[in-house]
Amino acid sequence: MIMDENTCGVVETQSLTCFNPPHELTLKSGQTLGPLTVAYETYGTLNTDKSNAILICHALTGDAHAAGFHEGDKKPGWWDTMVGPGKAIDTEKYFVICSNVLGGCKGTTGPASTNPKTGKPYGLSFPVITIKDMVQVQKTLIDYLGIPKLLNVIGGSMGGLQAMKWAVLYPEMVHSSVIIATSYRHSAQQIALHEVGRQAIMSDPDWADGDYYGKTVPKRGLAVARMIGHITYMSEKSMDEKFGRRLIDKEKVGYDFSADFEVQNYLKYRGDSFVERFDANSYLYLTKAVDYFDLPQDSGSLEKALEGVRSKFLVISFTSDWLYPSHQLRSFVTALKVNDHEVTNVVIKTDYGHDAFLIKNDRQELVVSHFLKRMQKEMNHER
Amino acid sequence: MIMDENTCGVVETQSLTCFNPPHELTLKSGQTLGPLTVAYETYGTLNTDKSNAILICHALTGDAHAAGFHEGDKKPGWWDTMVGPGKAIDTEKYFVICSNVLGGCKGTTGPASTNPKTGKPYGLSFPVITIKDMVQVQKTLIDYLGIPKLLNVIGGSMGGLQAMKWAVLYPEMVHSSVIIATSYRHSAQQIALHEVGRQAIMSDPDWADGDYYGKTVPKRGLAVARMIGHITYMSEKSMDEKFGRRLIDKEKVGYDFSADFEVQNYLKYRGDSFVERFDANSYLYLTKAVDYFDLPQDSGSLEKALEGVRSKFLVISFTSDWLYPSHQLRSFVTALKVNDHEVTNVVIKTDYGHDAFLIKNDRQELVVSHFLKRMQKEMNHER
Repeated sequence: MIMDENTCGVVETQSLTCFNPPHELTLKSGQTLGPLTVAYETYGTLNTDKSNAILICHALTGDAHAAGFHEGDKKPGWWDTMVGPGKAIDTEKYFVICSNVLGGCKGTTGPASTNPKTGKPYGLSFPVITIKDMVQVQKTLIDYLGIPKLLNVIGGSMGGLQAMKWAVLYPEMVHSSVIIATSYRHSAQQIALHEVGRQAIMSDPDWADGDYYGKTVPKRGLAVARMIGHITYMSEKSMDEKFGRRLIDKEKVGYDFSADFEVQNYLKYRGDSFVERFDANSYLYLTKAVDYFDLPQDSGSLEKALEGVRSKFLVISFTSDWLYPSHQLRSFVTALKVNDHEVTNVVIKTDYGHDAFLIKNDRQELVVSHFLKRMQKEMNHER
Repeated sequence: MIMDENTCGVVETQSLTCFNPPHELTLKSGQTLGPLTVAYETYGTLNTDKSNAILICHALTGDAHAAGFHEGDKKPGWWDTMVGPGKAIDTEKYFVICSNVLGGCKGTTGPASTNPKTGKPYGLSFPVITIKDMVQVQKTLIDYLGIPKLLNVIGGSMGGLQAMKWAVLYPEMVHSSVIIATSYRHSAQQIALHEVGRQAIMSDPDWADGDYYGKTVPKRGLAVARMIGHITYMSEKSMDEKFGRRLIDKEKVGYDFSADFEVQNYLKYRGDSFVERFDANSYLYLTKAVDYFDLPQDSGSLEKALEGVRSKFLVISFTSDWLYPSHQLRSFVTALKVNDHEVTNVVIKTDYGHDAFLIKNDRQELVVSHFLKRMQKEMNHER
């Protein structure tokens, strides 16, 4: 454990049980679900007027553990570069909340959880969920924490979708939003990339229609899905810089189907280690939720969908992110401007592709830090 | 069968048996292989001085059937838009040859062929082959056809690699080359994309270490590999134009894991139909050959690798091809120029991605047509 003054220190995941009978959650699909457990962490202190709360929304394979260290862990939370004392999301200034999404597998109710009605894991009997459903559950947590209005909702990738939905669904509760490396709806290519991952999982005989808990998990399928994901998270250039055509066995290729190139080993390692920490059914449910996300769908146009929004926006994309190319967020920014909403659009030059929002990135840190400071001043002034 | 004056008409695949004992082919790996069958087709007539021959090299999943119709078929060969009377590769002017590559599964010896030494299919006992090995086999065919010098060697994608190798390996035999939508070596990202496809196949229990002939073929794994391929062959824009977020069931999503979006059905269809026509082991062998390809490897630099080349080049890439981005071929073009070799570099604006070289494309047709005409004049003049 490396602890310095910039860390949140030892943190613990907490949990909330909600939607207890008879108060079930009504999902977008019309199905109902409850009771639910929500795993979450908080960093920093909520001020007396409850005006310094920031909600972090995590990406596809993230969790509630955004910052600090779990007891005994050597690695900090997934966004420790951004969250901590003196960091961009400054835990000396802000009260920061991060919760595992509905459908996840890191403490919040998902397909691997026990269905209280049967005493068995849900598996595919877990209802298909949407980004809206995730946000509704987060809203319940924020209400429980007694926060009337969030200073900011921030998220990258799938987290960005949640942040968008927050601003649309609860305009009175969101003072500002930071939307990073995402889109306002999944394109055909993005759906296709997710679909191949799902097909890889569902093609694995061990998947057994999702009923594999306590048996052999579909590790081959999930590993392939993760490999596809990893390629889309990096850029052509970052892969070339990291691996190029470097051989595992120096100057010799094997003329067989074992790995010759370092990039092959890396993918295999990432695939195999993912299987240890993630549930295959959760991967299906979360990718499906992302594919279903379509902000303008119910309003007819993106402009109309954003009409009632009251949040101020910081929108960040990355030049080498080919999974969520900048031009998709540009359309979102334009639609905000058409509504005369305040928005700052930042395209950060980087070779790190989609991963750029998760890796230490000075520009991202600076722009988020400045934006949050200004938003806090504004929100204090409003009151 | 739609026959008009622009078709080669009914064509037949022919075959050559070569490398009969004791003349085995020595592969780049050092292993030997023989006897070999080579499946090939020819269109047009070889002129008396044998100066009008064009060799077409096919891509990963192509075959010898580039143009015309097989008896009873409704669909013509894979490059019928480019090859035929009056077309860019004009069969009234040129004698056109196309052969299935070594390691393929369309008539030329590959892993699915019977090993004469055992009487059983090779499976994984088939030696790992390279682009150089493919070209050596093509050279044997060209010698057999009595052609001392090819007017042109042309190919896209994996076919482009073969065309490059021809110019380097047999400089006296290649008057000109057309290199389309390819690279002089596979980047880490390109290797990674192939690797995921291979992992999908090898993860399928039906693959059975390649020993599945006469049993259940690894169709799930091969279908997933093909789906990944298809995504890389299209562009973000072409997928959006072709499918967007159109639903299969009009306005309704299913809230389950069946296909909701048309793009999902399309991928599934392409994956499933590929399984009917392609051998999974061939997919492994051919992708491996492409990944191994590294033109500068033995020479220390790309410039040096191209020093001895005598061919004149037309190099074509496509703006929306993200699998083989233009900048990779730009390096190839620069290395040719450094050697003061003649090269015309054409970057064609299109939304069709990597697929652009296979789809009807006026610009590609025109530039190839003009280049070939000039090359023929030159070659006639030389003699």
